Amino acid sequence: MEANDLISLAREALARLETKGLKLAIAESLTGGLIGHILTETSGASRVFLGGVVAYDNRLKERIGVSRQTLDQHGAVSEQTAAEMAQGIRAWTGADISLAVTGIAGPGGATETKPLGLTYVAVADENGIACERFQWSEDRSANKRSTGEAALKLVIRAIAER
Amino acid sequence: MEANDLISLAREALARLETKGLKLAIAESLTGGLIGHILTETSGASRVFLGGVVAYDNRLKERIGVSRQTLDQHGAVSEQTAAEMAQGIRAWTGADISLAVTGIAGPGGATETKPLGLTYVAVADENGIACERFQWSEDRSANKRSTGEAALKLVIRAIAER
Repeated sequence: MEANDLISLAREALARLETKGLKLAIAESLTGGLIGHILTETSGASRVFLGGVVAYDNRLKERIGVSRQTLDQHGAVSEQTAAEMAQGIRAWTGADISLAVTGIAGPGGATETKPLGLTYVAVADENGIACERFQWSEDRSANKRSTGEAALKLVIRAIAER
Repeated sequence: MEANDLISLAREALARLETKGLKLAIAESLTGGLIGHILTETSGASRVFLGGVVAYDNRLKERIGVSRQTLDQHGAVSEQTAAEMAQGIRAWTGADISLAVTGIAGPGGATETKPLGLTYVAVADENGIACERFQWSEDRSANKRSTGEAALKLVIRAIAER
């Protein structure tokens, strides 16, 4: 998905948040800030978007509440870490609903058990956490955009299901 | 400056950080994540970029150490807030050098004393803080990109002067 389509998708997410009176926060690892950037391309985003953390380095994932044990046992790119990032950023910011993304953007970073493009996206609210796994196969920049698209769609669906 | 030129500028900043063995963190308000996104378009960014906070809402500015008094007296878009954001994110992340940006992206948000496009960019390291004031006059998206350009140039200069 290209940037302009992502901005349209973000606008839909912002509108749904506003309709339901919800505040959103995000914790971004592999996207590095892309999702926040896309959300704030639209004027008035500040009414529903609190901000969040670009938890690129693991010490910042810990700062928002991911446990050292989770990072050691499951790794930074795992369902467990994505879930703790989403829970953690929601608590740290006081948001109603939160998004978290972690993955291997490439071209470096793959391991024996974790291929390039492996990505987890999580959404958390007061009812719990939902997490999805993706396997992207494009270049770094496109993998970031695909993750942004998946994250925005996940939060739109989570809002609709409330 | 267009996105591709920003990515080149970010690559220069990353290379200089790596040469000097420095870790960078950022606190973004009006750019919403753009600077982190641009930095992480380049593979290997994780060697020098720790991440940071998208401190869009004032409560997140406080979370990283901006005082309530500063926000009340000078406002979120002020030299004082930019400086405290830069100092705060450096302390919060343990980075060697940090960047902070705050401003009024538009089209809303202007006040009697603070015009649309007013923006402050600050850089902090162990030697102190430097802050610059800008007055942009483009649309929201271009104002964000101009801020990203100014921030990357400021950190490149700060690294060169060390």
